[in-house]
Amino acid sequence: MPGSGTTSTSRGPVPSGRGPRRDRPWTAAWELLLPAATAPPRQRGRTLQAALREAVRSGRLAPGTRLPSSRALAADLGVSRGLVTDAYEQLTAEGYLRGSRGSGTWVGASAGPGAHGARDGGGPAEGPGGAGTGAAGPVPSGAGRSVPVADFRPGTPDLSLFPRAGWSAAQRRVLARLPNRGLGYPDPRGLPELREALAALLARRRGVAADPACLVVTSGVAQALTLLGLVLRDRGRPAVALEDPGSPEPEGLFAAAGLGTVAVPVDADGPRLGALAASGARAIVTTPAHQFPSGIAYTADRRAGLLGWARAVDGLVIEDDYDGDFRYDRAPVGALQGLDPDRVAYTGSVSKSLAPGLRLGWLVVPERLASEVTARKRTLDLGNPVLDQAALADFIACGAYDRQLRRCQRAYRQRRDTLVAALRRRFPGAVVTGIAAGLHVIVRLPPRYGPQPRFLARAAAAGVAVRPLSDFGTAPDGDGAVRLVLGYAHLPPDGIERAVGLLPAG
Amino acid sequence: MPGSGTTSTSRGPVPSGRGPRRDRPWTAAWELLLPAATAPPRQRGRTLQAALREAVRSGRLAPGTRLPSSRALAADLGVSRGLVTDAYEQLTAEGYLRGSRGSGTWVGASAGPGAHGARDGGGPAEGPGGAGTGAAGPVPSGAGRSVPVADFRPGTPDLSLFPRAGWSAAQRRVLARLPNRGLGYPDPRGLPELREALAALLARRRGVAADPACLVVTSGVAQALTLLGLVLRDRGRPAVALEDPGSPEPEGLFAAAGLGTVAVPVDADGPRLGALAASGARAIVTTPAHQFPSGIAYTADRRAGLLGWARAVDGLVIEDDYDGDFRYDRAPVGALQGLDPDRVAYTGSVSKSLAPGLRLGWLVVPERLASEVTARKRTLDLGNPVLDQAALADFIACGAYDRQLRRCQRAYRQRRDTLVAALRRRFPGAVVTGIAAGLHVIVRLPPRYGPQPRFLARAAAAGVAVRPLSDFGTAPDGDGAVRLVLGYAHLPPDGIERAVGLLPAG
Repeated sequence: MPGSGTTSTSRGPVPSGRGPRRDRPWTAAWELLLPAATAPPRQRGRTLQAALREAVRSGRLAPGTRLPSSRALAADLGVSRGLVTDAYEQLTAEGYLRGSRGSGTWVGASAGPGAHGARDGGGPAEGPGGAGTGAAGPVPSGAGRSVPVADFRPGTPDLSLFPRAGWSAAQRRVLARLPNRGLGYPDPRGLPELREALAALLARRRGVAADPACLVVTSGVAQALTLLGLVLRDRGRPAVALEDPGSPEPEGLFAAAGLGTVAVPVDADGPRLGALAASGARAIVTTPAHQFPSGIAYTADRRAGLLGWARAVDGLVIEDDYDGDFRYDRAPVGALQGLDPDRVAYTGSVSKSLAPGLRLGWLVVPERLASEVTARKRTLDLGNPVLDQAALADFIACGAYDRQLRRCQRAYRQRRDTLVAALRRRFPGAVVTGIAAGLHVIVRLPPRYGPQPRFLARAAAAGVAVRPLSDFGTAPDGDGAVRLVLGYAHLPPDGIERAVGLLPAG
Repeated sequence: MPGSGTTSTSRGPVPSGRGPRRDRPWTAAWELLLPAATAPPRQRGRTLQAALREAVRSGRLAPGTRLPSSRALAADLGVSRGLVTDAYEQLTAEGYLRGSRGSGTWVGASAGPGAHGARDGGGPAEGPGGAGTGAAGPVPSGAGRSVPVADFRPGTPDLSLFPRAGWSAAQRRVLARLPNRGLGYPDPRGLPELREALAALLARRRGVAADPACLVVTSGVAQALTLLGLVLRDRGRPAVALEDPGSPEPEGLFAAAGLGTVAVPVDADGPRLGALAASGARAIVTTPAHQFPSGIAYTADRRAGLLGWARAVDGLVIEDDYDGDFRYDRAPVGALQGLDPDRVAYTGSVSKSLAPGLRLGWLVVPERLASEVTARKRTLDLGNPVLDQAALADFIACGAYDRQLRRCQRAYRQRRDTLVAALRRRFPGAVVTGIAAGLHVIVRLPPRYGPQPRFLARAAAAGVAVRPLSDFGTAPDGDGAVRLVLGYAHLPPDGIERAVGLLPAG
């Protein structure tokens, strides 16, 4: 908390000067950042960002203070440089920090306790060459000096594929057709016509057993997880198992909902059932169609075993079908939910197929949870905005959504092929693992390109943002080889070629 | 819970028959509804709806069961008929019940435990003659038999005033102009350009001291209250005081956030400070510009006293400026927030000026709460959808929003004048209280038109939906006179004249 006075090195009153002060030391805030070094790996990035934010808000890092280079801070804290550049970018986007390429990063003039926080923090930064966004995960990336030349961080689709003309036409049709009463307070579950369209779509494309009455339109997968977290808390507050390696997002969402989480290792077939049973969890977040980030598809045996576990412990499998629409080598495996709709809550969104900014997703729940989820949705926002919902219903009904999925599928398949070929050319012996699907690949480089810390440092020095697989899990690297999670969906093929060419192969 | 077996009159297996069964008794579910009779007045409606929903979901009320008339059920439970018709409408909209004018109300064929819940529950029903919607508060009204001929229930603006052409033009401009990165994951606080436009607008129109850094775009006032509730829970879980009489919505929202509430009486000047101090609450939800439903404006002394209380107890005043844009006799009193931005959280929305279905509102918080509110907003939905936000920013910037406010102001003023004149003609001696503002009036009829229960029964029999003031508070009626809360914004002037003419004056 501001002014809690625990730092003996506090440097007294905060100066009100503006502009960079390159000579100002920042040791006063040092100890505030140390928790980031000792946090569990999956929490390090968030911990570092929170600590930096607090240091600025409290005045420990005074306006004008120049920050160390991301390389120096990463070395001092013993964390990856990517975590530091992400933190700098995020806080620059929020207005706490300022910076630009070549001139360093410093604390914003209006960011301290004498001002009203982050005055002009902005939206996502423009990516290099306008080729896409640099966002890693669901946070905007900043406009600071740390914007990389090329960005392989996963999590964002190609926003230039958004069908502006088609969406605009759907918006026009909606406003011309929607009765006045459709502009009133919405059904908290979502527009009936959208829920019906989505239920039919998910049944057809993904084998989801989707009763519109059990389908709730959500503000993306994040809100779906929050809704489930709140309902699970009301129902006995079970621990929730998360895949390891896995996405870092669910942990924070469930913590905010008051639920603890426990990591369950993923092997080549899916989550380990023995570890799951031993964990005591009664819910698990899964990515069966294309595990994030490892890229495997759960085997049929493991899928069945998971459902058996859920039945045995009266548990719930949460299926995040985040990229189930994109499989390039064969028809995608159907949703796990279709096998046992009473034991699986299924969620997905248009974030990968249309745009994350629409904040439109869905959650199909077992019938016994439907009214509780609806009640929670009502208290969160009374229901999603109606115009985007009606536009999506129209977009699905006229066939445009299927066309969009095919268009994305073609583009992403081409990019994946380009990336895999470029990697194999530049790193002979590189092994791409995981199924041909989704928006990212896992690549393991031969030992001669390692060790990993050296590779990452050289990639960062070359201006290429990459995330090692180790950022997403707790397992130690067995062989020290370089293993990367490379997102490619937001990069055009020539950008992919160029970016691979910047990776250190010498 | 389904099958909990507490009802000794349970009638065994649920039949699977379809269509109305007029002969089927429904006594099995009777005791499930009794809590509605004994709930505190402000919770009766919600309790009744929850009990009815549970009775249907559990099968206690089997598919095809015919429900008693709203009049009969209201008499049996000892609640107002309006509560019962609201409950029937809501559950019809949700698909649990079915019905139509003249043929009664019965349990839907697919609503029981053998089906997947409310299969085709729909959106808001079309009002009589297309004159507006029948929604009372933030729930859609149903298509059941209980739709009134005329509806004075407050809470919904005239949705036909929504500026379709102007909004459509703003949408087109947004899609033509928004950079690709603008379609990515949003800033959880809202689009920077919208936050800046809103801060300027609120400063200009309402005297809000609005730093864009402390302004969060929300899914309406409901989400603003949920956000504050979650942050307050993290900060010591204080009790929250609510105005009595007052809106019934905040109580449920804070309960869902884990906070208790306490009613504080409102007198002619505002909330009673002695009762507030004695309540032990450290936060209070207020409507200073136009108290809902009493219609008073807080006096300057009471405003100052409220801020003094907040400073003394380190408390927070939550200012719901739900209709502060609509005052007809003079310039509106500025927002309380402007007097002490460190002690007041200010919230409002476009629900009354544009459409509730947009789910667009704002929350301006003291600087010390900004980062916590932002963090909670992030876990709820990652931020509001971007296209509507950008459209609103455009709409404000081009002056269209000010024009829309003037248009609504003219229309609503005319409707208020029409209503007040019609009431005085039909009920000589009627006293309209409260300031000339907002979207509803309070009228007290002379004693000869009472007692109130008889008046309400006759109004309902004539097909006019009205809510007595007593539905919104706990204070006993001193004199037994009829006191009504009449919403007029959604009714055209000739509809207002007709509806007043249907009220029982004989």
